[in-house]
Amino acid sequence: MSDHTDCGLNLDPQIKEDARRRLLSVKGHVDGVARMLERDEVYCVDVLKQVSAIEGALRKVGDLVLRSHLRNHVVTAHERGDTDAIVAELMEVLKYRK
Amino acid sequence: MSDHTDCGLNLDPQIKEDARRRLLSVKGHVDGVARMLERDEVYCVDVLKQVSAIEGALRKVGDLVLRSHLRNHVVTAHERGDTDAIVAELMEVLKYRK
Amino acid sequence: MSDHTDCGLNLDPQIKEDARRRLLSVKGHVDGVARMLERDEVYCVDVLKQVSAIEGALRKVGDLVLRSHLRNHVVTAHERGDTDAIVAELMEVLKYRK
Amino acid sequence: MSDHTDCGLNLDPQIKEDARRRLLSVKGHVDGVARMLERDEVYCVDVLKQVSAIEGALRKVGDLVLRSHLRNHVVTAHERGDTDAIVAELMEVLKYRK
Repeated sequence: MSDHTDCGLNLDPQIKEDARRRLLSVKGHVDGVARMLERDEVYCVDVLKQVSAIEGALRKVGDLVLRSHLRNHVVTAHERGDTDAIVAELMEVLKYRK
Repeated sequence: MSDHTDCGLNLDPQIKEDARRRLLSVKGHVDGVARMLERDEVYCVDVLKQVSAIEGALRKVGDLVLRSHLRNHVVTAHERGDTDAIVAELMEVLKYRK
Repeated sequence: MSDHTDCGLNLDPQIKEDARRRLLSVKGHVDGVARMLERDEVYCVDVLKQVSAIEGALRKVGDLVLRSHLRNHVVTAHERGDTDAIVAELMEVLKYRK
Repeated sequence: MSDHTDCGLNLDPQIKEDARRRLLSVKGHVDGVARMLERDEVYCVDVLKQVSAIEGALRKVGDLVLRSHLRNHVVTAHERGDTDAIVAELMEVLKYRK
């Protein structure tokens, strides 16, 4: 876990609550697909479509948090003097972004 | 939902069980991130990393099911005579694949 | 390079010509962006947009070839008896697909 | 084309030259695949692998320019007072990033 919370670089409370609610919805969706897989007959492509839908919902959560991070922490990095760390960390996160 | 299950194009039982267990693990991970968002202080990048990790785990579930679909249903499409439908459907699914 | 051409698994001639023409167009686009970078003043985001547009055009070439491969070679793998090789190779290619 | 060059938000000269050279290499690679498609016999998967390799090289160009944009323009947006525009534009570009 990062120690940036010590510096006050916290996720905006409203975004945090929005992301949390979306994740609970994603959790329900994942559970639904897991239960779909308990059925005797399941068509592969129906599973693939559900997995893609869940990935799309997660992507929206990621976009919310990313936009908030850019707006609240990245655009002020030069003033704070932590440009190198902020940029390196952001590029790393974007590398794994699906 | 597709009516391909009527034609016996069902997901292989072992893959189905493997995918189901992986989804339950993904569900736990999603829940963990939702609870992380209840804390007062959360750093955006820590959330983004967790979301990427969940996307990676979902991708593995999708790969399992996709490989099984290719092996069990796509390679036999010409013999069954449903090449057009199988290919169109697969290209559509791959389009949304993250 | 693969030895599948020995087995007659060749890219369909019409798709090959379509893909070739699209690649020549992509080549012109890439050259245009390289020349854009010779200017004194270039805005980063304009470059990023052009790079994304080129990636989109390449994706279409890949989709053309992939659909042709599925339709002409993958759906007949079981009849030919090379399911394992065809599926392993396809999953590998899809792994790197952007 | 953006009017940000009026505000001095230009791509760093060294990155510009590095990106330009990489694009000329990508152009050669694209041309090579176009010529590969003139052959009588070409295996689909060999084309798909080459297209993925080109996409990978383009991604590196995009990453170079993106990192430079973050480091030189995004981290100073708050000081300049154009946070809204910079963030909206960046999120748009990241949406289409493969």
